[in-house]
Amino acid sequence: MVQLKQSPLPLRNDSFEQQLKLVSVQLEDVLKAILPPPNTRLHEAMAYSVLGGGKRLRAFLTHAAADLFSVPSKTALDVAAAIEFVHAYSLVHDDLPAMDNADMRRNKPSCHKAYGEATAILVGDALIPLAFQTLSALKTSNDVRLELIHELSRVIGSGGLVAGQMIDLNQEGPIVTEEDLLTLQRLKTGVLFGFATEAGAILGHASSSEREALKNFGLLFGRMFQMVDDWLDGCGDEKVTGKPSHQDKDKLTFLTLLGPQALRKKVEETLKEALDVLSPFGEKAAPLKEAAQYACRWGTK
Amino acid sequence: MVQLKQSPLPLRNDSFEQQLKLVSVQLEDVLKAILPPPNTRLHEAMAYSVLGGGKRLRAFLTHAAADLFSVPSKTALDVAAAIEFVHAYSLVHDDLPAMDNADMRRNKPSCHKAYGEATAILVGDALIPLAFQTLSALKTSNDVRLELIHELSRVIGSGGLVAGQMIDLNQEGPIVTEEDLLTLQRLKTGVLFGFATEAGAILGHASSSEREALKNFGLLFGRMFQMVDDWLDGCGDEKVTGKPSHQDKDKLTFLTLLGPQALRKKVEETLKEALDVLSPFGEKAAPLKEAAQYACRWGTK
Repeated sequence: MVQLKQSPLPLRNDSFEQQLKLVSVQLEDVLKAILPPPNTRLHEAMAYSVLGGGKRLRAFLTHAAADLFSVPSKTALDVAAAIEFVHAYSLVHDDLPAMDNADMRRNKPSCHKAYGEATAILVGDALIPLAFQTLSALKTSNDVRLELIHELSRVIGSGGLVAGQMIDLNQEGPIVTEEDLLTLQRLKTGVLFGFATEAGAILGHASSSEREALKNFGLLFGRMFQMVDDWLDGCGDEKVTGKPSHQDKDKLTFLTLLGPQALRKKVEETLKEALDVLSPFGEKAAPLKEAAQYACRWGTK
Repeated sequence: MVQLKQSPLPLRNDSFEQQLKLVSVQLEDVLKAILPPPNTRLHEAMAYSVLGGGKRLRAFLTHAAADLFSVPSKTALDVAAAIEFVHAYSLVHDDLPAMDNADMRRNKPSCHKAYGEATAILVGDALIPLAFQTLSALKTSNDVRLELIHELSRVIGSGGLVAGQMIDLNQEGPIVTEEDLLTLQRLKTGVLFGFATEAGAILGHASSSEREALKNFGLLFGRMFQMVDDWLDGCGDEKVTGKPSHQDKDKLTFLTLLGPQALRKKVEETLKEALDVLSPFGEKAAPLKEAAQYACRWGTK
């Protein structure tokens, strides 16, 4: 089994992991406050699917991007919550028997294993409007709220997230080339990372070039994230990743297409590109840079 | 088999049916313009699920309610399109094997029968954000757009539409009393009818009492609609309804709970209540009244 070597870049991981943990803890409180109280089976299953899991990297990115423009932390966390609702819905539906048929998620039974298939479908169906409800109630200007709603609706719709899942399930023809894989990745995971960072710019009334740069950073982050994820699935340690390895063994992935060495090189190139995109923000962008470096080092433990 | 007798109320049905048809034809054009072109399997399945079906009663209600306040027809139809996207998603997901497992819908194979289960789930997942995208792009003030988005997100979320479907699937305990049935009906179908008419009031900057009256009319319309639907399932003619009868034979419905005579009486009482609610609008509300009388007469043909 090939091991991903230590990244050559200077890292301050203890500090970054502390920051990530802090955002994650704060986000958990925000998610709990927005989620309906678990007084029905549906509400219980929603909480089961949203709370207590995941590294909350998207939330960290939104929070760090918004912080570039001194957006109040709570406002950024509300937007991050909307994104987490969407992310949780996509995982619940992706795990369904008709999709990836995954029994485990985040070290516990997937939603349909715990609550049944009908409830799992409905959990997703309820989390999507909850995301929009959250954005519509944001403490920001009407313009900002509408811009976030409009962008999120595009990103998670039939030209974004859902299109990516269709491609991933081979519903839109075979996936053959690296180009196909890049499109799949961009739609299935990239665009939501792109929105996570772009949302910070929208909240901060950023210039169009700043907004574009942050969106690009998110897209590159997402690409790198997927490449590392593919690597972990083939070469990673189940104890570190928290999910069974080799789930993708019958699929074309960046690992099976490129092999571990070339993939490693691609990840490093993408990391460099992502860091370059942030150069206009100077030192202030350190948390975003550290997030990228962190995402790139998962395989080293 | 008990026949629902002709309603005693004065009716102008030819004229109403022409109006309904006109709105339905105009709506079809708006839906086609908003839906993505059918260049992928997903987009094709979305069009399959949205276009060319249904009486478009919700669209008629939105259009007629908005017309009370002289809202431009196109704006009302855009909102009606958003509501139809939500309605179509709910039908596609309700028909899934894990839910009602229905093979036919609107005289053709249900979405999962035509395109497979994964695609059907994703069609629903894509139609929800399309509804919000449509509202976010409306040609109205920011306030109106946000109010519509906020209300729709509430109505179709875990305290509305989705809660209703959970109850309908017996996921929240047994349905025993008329009260249980009324709650189920209100959540599963009522609230979207309530939103259809309330949306007209929101578009028209109506007073809060006008808005409340129109919302109530929609809720009562929805209740009546469900009661007639239950009646049709038990006593209706498949050639008229376009779907197999006795699908609900193992469920508690208004028909099995009350029996045909008492149900008939309830429908008439609800109709009267709905018409009374409209009295502040006088003659201008004639199209809404005719819609209610029409919904109440389906069983007569």
